[in-house]
Amino acid sequence: MAQKPSIPKGTRDFSPAEMARRNYIFNTIRDVFALFGFRQIETPAMENLSTLMGKYGEEGDKLLFKILNSGDFTNKVDAELWNEPVKLASKICEKGLRYDLTVPFARFVVQHRNDIQFPFKRFQIQPVWRADRPQKGRYREFYQCDADIIGSDSLVNEIELLQLIDEVFSRLNIRIAIKLNNRKVLAGIAEYIGAPEKMVDITVAIDKIDKIGIENVNAELRERGLSEESIAKLQPVLEITGDTESRLSQLDAILGESEIGKLGIAELREVITGVKELGLRAELDLDVSLARGLNYYTGTIIEVKALDTQIGSITGGGRYDNLTGVFGLPGVSGVGISFGADRIYDVMNTLDLYPADTLRGSKVMFTSFGKQESAAALKMLMKMRAAGIPGEIFPDIAKMQKQMKYADAMAIPFVAIVGESEMQQGKLNLKDMTSGEQHLLTVDEAIEFLKSK
Amino acid sequence: MAQKPSIPKGTRDFSPAEMARRNYIFNTIRDVFALFGFRQIETPAMENLSTLMGKYGEEGDKLLFKILNSGDFTNKVDAELWNEPVKLASKICEKGLRYDLTVPFARFVVQHRNDIQFPFKRFQIQPVWRADRPQKGRYREFYQCDADIIGSDSLVNEIELLQLIDEVFSRLNIRIAIKLNNRKVLAGIAEYIGAPEKMVDITVAIDKIDKIGIENVNAELRERGLSEESIAKLQPVLEITGDTESRLSQLDAILGESEIGKLGIAELREVITGVKELGLRAELDLDVSLARGLNYYTGTIIEVKALDTQIGSITGGGRYDNLTGVFGLPGVSGVGISFGADRIYDVMNTLDLYPADTLRGSKVMFTSFGKQESAAALKMLMKMRAAGIPGEIFPDIAKMQKQMKYADAMAIPFVAIVGESEMQQGKLNLKDMTSGEQHLLTVDEAIEFLKSK
Repeated sequence: MAQKPSIPKGTRDFSPAEMARRNYIFNTIRDVFALFGFRQIETPAMENLSTLMGKYGEEGDKLLFKILNSGDFTNKVDAELWNEPVKLASKICEKGLRYDLTVPFARFVVQHRNDIQFPFKRFQIQPVWRADRPQKGRYREFYQCDADIIGSDSLVNEIELLQLIDEVFSRLNIRIAIKLNNRKVLAGIAEYIGAPEKMVDITVAIDKIDKIGIENVNAELRERGLSEESIAKLQPVLEITGDTESRLSQLDAILGESEIGKLGIAELREVITGVKELGLRAELDLDVSLARGLNYYTGTIIEVKALDTQIGSITGGGRYDNLTGVFGLPGVSGVGISFGADRIYDVMNTLDLYPADTLRGSKVMFTSFGKQESAAALKMLMKMRAAGIPGEIFPDIAKMQKQMKYADAMAIPFVAIVGESEMQQGKLNLKDMTSGEQHLLTVDEAIEFLKSK
Repeated sequence: MAQKPSIPKGTRDFSPAEMARRNYIFNTIRDVFALFGFRQIETPAMENLSTLMGKYGEEGDKLLFKILNSGDFTNKVDAELWNEPVKLASKICEKGLRYDLTVPFARFVVQHRNDIQFPFKRFQIQPVWRADRPQKGRYREFYQCDADIIGSDSLVNEIELLQLIDEVFSRLNIRIAIKLNNRKVLAGIAEYIGAPEKMVDITVAIDKIDKIGIENVNAELRERGLSEESIAKLQPVLEITGDTESRLSQLDAILGESEIGKLGIAELREVITGVKELGLRAELDLDVSLARGLNYYTGTIIEVKALDTQIGSITGGGRYDNLTGVFGLPGVSGVGISFGADRIYDVMNTLDLYPADTLRGSKVMFTSFGKQESAAALKMLMKMRAAGIPGEIFPDIAKMQKQMKYADAMAIPFVAIVGESEMQQGKLNLKDMTSGEQHLLTVDEAIEFLKSK
């Protein structure tokens, strides 16, 4: 019983100071989502396992947290299944915890399709759970912040999302680079070199150029079964250099024969031109090797990296053509992004990017030196709160030093001292905890003063 | 596959309109918590079952959602347990979902006690899960909003919490009655009538006076094993009438012999006097039959009822002397309240108490009539957002009627029409969707206009 309690590995408690920092991030993202006209939804933490299973690949199925059926859960289950845990689990568990926000969103859209006005601009900020092996920066419970527009093919949506990303990170003061690609360009390259079925292999290999060099990339392509002819045809693509516009032109010239490749380049051009016309604070680069979620995205692919840390991708997204097909509603296309709140939190902590007042709770603390003094202080405190000033009273009658120590530890910037003398004058002594200065004020004067701080 | 997907019974999806209403409630509670100097924490959705089991009684243990261990969960578990589901569950599940916010908070305090500055004023707003039978107003996933002050015996905390309750419901525009009691008064009554071990029975019976009358209450007390002498001694208590002050005086006279009873009355007096001096908008009534959480509370007991509906208790709380003893840290006393957000949501919906602008998302929607027009519109939209006006653009080039229909369905109050003619003049036609009025404006003029709305 007296053993010190703990929490499951990979999960976290958040202290008031941590919550203040996290709220700063979540509020910033939420404010920008709303500014851009996205509307919030929430879905339950628990989904039916039939909704979740098979949506994240075989590995994903294993990482789902499953919830044991209530009551007599072995009833009507064949005891022979004891030696087949996977099958047994599917019999004794009907529900699982949300693994991401995308599948529940797809389920939401299909379930409520008659109530939804399309195009549907939704955002969702909720935790997800994965039974992954915990390690630095990887948790079993973490937050995702997703914004999607579904039911619209227009590339205006991509332009809007890139602006939204720019606005969020500008507000958070995180310098970023946005990488852009288009799945159709990848398909075009594979088609052009005569290996359309090898698109994934080609992309994976190209992705390593900066690390291992062209020679090693070619060796890897050979290993992955590409013909010498295909590899030879790929070389001009690998040698493309220059700025985004010039790389697009070179790609365009090379992929001239591929319908899908040309379409991908046209889409990239339209998005990049649109964004540049509006002005973007972040770097925006074409990255032909960018392939995140390749099996899922069908057009634009977006990835955001923080420039001043090694933390890697902190936001990503793209366009998909068939979000809800798996739930029986085909033809719903959309585009979305997901902010990795916990990674952004790590970046903000590493670079210490929080505004100075993020941690501030109460602006003023009243002292307690006796029942009458406390009663007088409570009246003044009530007036301050009515004026919108967050404040508290040290609840116990205690020595001045103890009360001051608390205010100090809580980083409360002002202490309102109400002793016998102040009480008799109907005033308070407002002490600035930074400068040590102290002023005898009426509560109305103190309110004016604190509001200006 | 084409079967329409659903969610587990007792859980809910929240649409944008529902989220807007819920956020209004949560933000109000959160703002008042912060105004009163409470600081937010969060704990994981999953706790070790060893933390949760045995804390909510036998019935509570059954209502915990248990999470199946990952991987080969039957490994090293005795297959003989198949016929003992309770024992088996404890072997194949190590974690469970949070059942309330109190036990995780107690666990948090003990685990982090060296980092916590006492008195600790924390608030916490998170969902909890219970495998209860779902019914109207009872869900398997619902939110609790708790505020507690721990590490302080002062009744100033009670006064503050009552003020906080008053402020929250005043802001939400819900008329309430606050019922107040003190466990020590209940103990005093039981002591005075010579049946200290029957405190719970006495309280349960007294609670029914209004419904069944004194005669039936007495019959029930007999059934519960109270002696005729005890019942006779109890009669003066049952006959107490009048306002709170006069009832307190009558109680005081009757319980004169009981130390604990006198203490309870003194505490009630101090709290009631303190609150009344500060002024309370809500009704505040002594209710000697109020006994919620009797096994848990040791002093003040608080319950809040909405006056204009039948929904019953929407907030409750009280003082406890030993929150963390079960985790090996005795002597930590505190007082707290819990707002039942989902019940408050039901009250707000029933009485339709939301401000008119609760549902508002975008303030303006720009039209799309062609690529050039959209590009011009995007520039104007960007300026509006930079001025803090939430807005969106209909992403697809579509007929006017379709775009207007969307704006209407989304309750967007203004539509900015940018056709060829407006584009050439560098202006927009701002249409008021309520009056139908339309004005040709520059974007700066439109911003001024929209900011004044």
